[in-house]
Amino acid sequence: MTNTTTNNYPFLAACRREKTPYTPIWIMRQAGRYMEEYRKLRAQYGFLELCKKPDLAAEITVTPVERLGVDAAILFADILLILEPLGVGLEYSKGDGPVIHHPVRSGKDIDGLKDFDPEKELSFVYEAVRKICAALNHKVPLIGFAGAPFTLASYLIEGSGSRNYIHTKKLYYAAPQAWHRLMELLAARTAKYLNCQIAAGAQAVQIFDSWAGCLAPADYEQFVLPHTKAVIDAITPGVPVINFSTGTAGLLKQIRSAGGSVIGLDWRVNLDEGWATVGHDVAVQGNLDPVALFASPKEIRQRADDVLRRAGGRPGHIFNLGHGVLPETPVDHVIALVDAVHELSAR
Amino acid sequence: MTNTTTNNYPFLAACRREKTPYTPIWIMRQAGRYMEEYRKLRAQYGFLELCKKPDLAAEITVTPVERLGVDAAILFADILLILEPLGVGLEYSKGDGPVIHHPVRSGKDIDGLKDFDPEKELSFVYEAVRKICAALNHKVPLIGFAGAPFTLASYLIEGSGSRNYIHTKKLYYAAPQAWHRLMELLAARTAKYLNCQIAAGAQAVQIFDSWAGCLAPADYEQFVLPHTKAVIDAITPGVPVINFSTGTAGLLKQIRSAGGSVIGLDWRVNLDEGWATVGHDVAVQGNLDPVALFASPKEIRQRADDVLRRAGGRPGHIFNLGHGVLPETPVDHVIALVDAVHELSAR
Repeated sequence: MTNTTTNNYPFLAACRREKTPYTPIWIMRQAGRYMEEYRKLRAQYGFLELCKKPDLAAEITVTPVERLGVDAAILFADILLILEPLGVGLEYSKGDGPVIHHPVRSGKDIDGLKDFDPEKELSFVYEAVRKICAALNHKVPLIGFAGAPFTLASYLIEGSGSRNYIHTKKLYYAAPQAWHRLMELLAARTAKYLNCQIAAGAQAVQIFDSWAGCLAPADYEQFVLPHTKAVIDAITPGVPVINFSTGTAGLLKQIRSAGGSVIGLDWRVNLDEGWATVGHDVAVQGNLDPVALFASPKEIRQRADDVLRRAGGRPGHIFNLGHGVLPETPVDHVIALVDAVHELSAR
Repeated sequence: MTNTTTNNYPFLAACRREKTPYTPIWIMRQAGRYMEEYRKLRAQYGFLELCKKPDLAAEITVTPVERLGVDAAILFADILLILEPLGVGLEYSKGDGPVIHHPVRSGKDIDGLKDFDPEKELSFVYEAVRKICAALNHKVPLIGFAGAPFTLASYLIEGSGSRNYIHTKKLYYAAPQAWHRLMELLAARTAKYLNCQIAAGAQAVQIFDSWAGCLAPADYEQFVLPHTKAVIDAITPGVPVINFSTGTAGLLKQIRSAGGSVIGLDWRVNLDEGWATVGHDVAVQGNLDPVALFASPKEIRQRADDVLRRAGGRPGHIFNLGHGVLPETPVDHVIALVDAVHELSAR
């Protein structure tokens, strides 16, 4: 179910809200631990090592495209890679997720961050992009990605995953100017990083604001929106931007205001209601519950049909989960979803 | 700022959407670890021990009312107490939160749950309620509470806190009849438990569906709503029910359909928008971000004013945080919030 003419990929057409022969689908974390091929490589290499070896990153990126039959590839990388050159002691520790050994908690800490050029420091990513594009050979387009400034800032400030984001919020309460300085710095680096991915061959980009769901709408507007918007506004013209977040059903209007040609919707809002809230003049991506892939293939098909029914055949829907595929998910169930979406949406 | 005539408590009047001289406020977990008096008792007794000693539970309940000047007391207890008589091996382990040693994962497990009468098994709770009411001496009303059937069921099934609720959702995908049997069992016990609290003196009850925010709206409708509604419909007539959940900005219409005279709103939705969604024919409770209490008292006052402004002076707003007060919160900041709400809303 893929396209061979580069101008007419269903995924890119849907980003532009053009009619497509079927609803395109890709899966967040489609290159990940639920897949045996990936687990085998991870047994041999550290996570950061895989990110930094363009041949392996390319292999990991391309494998699920072939295995699943999805309509787009997504770069294998990590949203925190861009934090490493800041000199904060990023470490991918086993089990507990990444850790920042020198978290940033004050204006002084922010001013002490190393300056760097994302074009030079992250060249291994662009090399992976070039190799992926060569391997994909125009079969499907490649999506590049980066973390949104808020999600990056909160990792920098908390130093690890967080439940309540107390340090992050304390910083913008107590030192709003320092906060905005940090966000501007991250937004500028992120925009350049994404444009370098595009220059290397990525045909769309997704901005992950995975943690924005902890924010009150007024805080998002004041402390986050201008910076996410700055990244999106700086993206190479004509390249679709997917503005992704999770747990943000009460923030959708504000997220739409930050920009993006496609707005990510998670499963905690009905797709029809979420689309109406962000407006039908923008495309949407989503929104099956990742846990639904633990149901039977028959049940998965019914749930896919419900999402498609809510999209109503309107151009501009990209099917995806509401968040990344979970490590324990059966691969066969992912394939069943991709097939069901292609079949049920064929027009 | 409290009332001495039992018919005219601002908190209960607001539950009924009657005019009040000021906006009543109480704080979820107002009897908790952020308070030195509580930490001292916890150093001497285990958590479950405190719950089971009515004199101490009463002391813990009443202390914050005096310290903070809030408009309601809330019973000191835990939502999982009702699971203990089911014979699943509930243990409050140190640090990691409560654990269920024999989680329920199948129809057979459900049928193996012990039957019990909440009136007999949880008599220590009602004894605490009676002692609290005597100690409060009509100063403020007492709120009783219980977990909602979904939140109780997911704890029973997962066996501990969960990130993705895979076992819970798998059960309702694969064995919907067993799921509904479990939910009916929990709903019936919970309704009786709450009515016993009311019989002992509680003047309102709050139902905590703290984990409902992981659900797609369609799943909430099919697997959760009828059972939450069954609890609410069975509550002693005339007693206000607060239907509380968190992370449910995309589910508010469904939550409203489950019932309650007051709907809890968390900070991830603007209070004016949330109230419009659930309808102005119901009262609302909320919705300051608990982390906002780490800001300066001046900033806390501004944020309280913003919430009050969004409530627009409409009768039927109970001020609260969007979730429980966090353990590291400065007590002085909580007092500053209570004072600010009383002052800014005085009419």
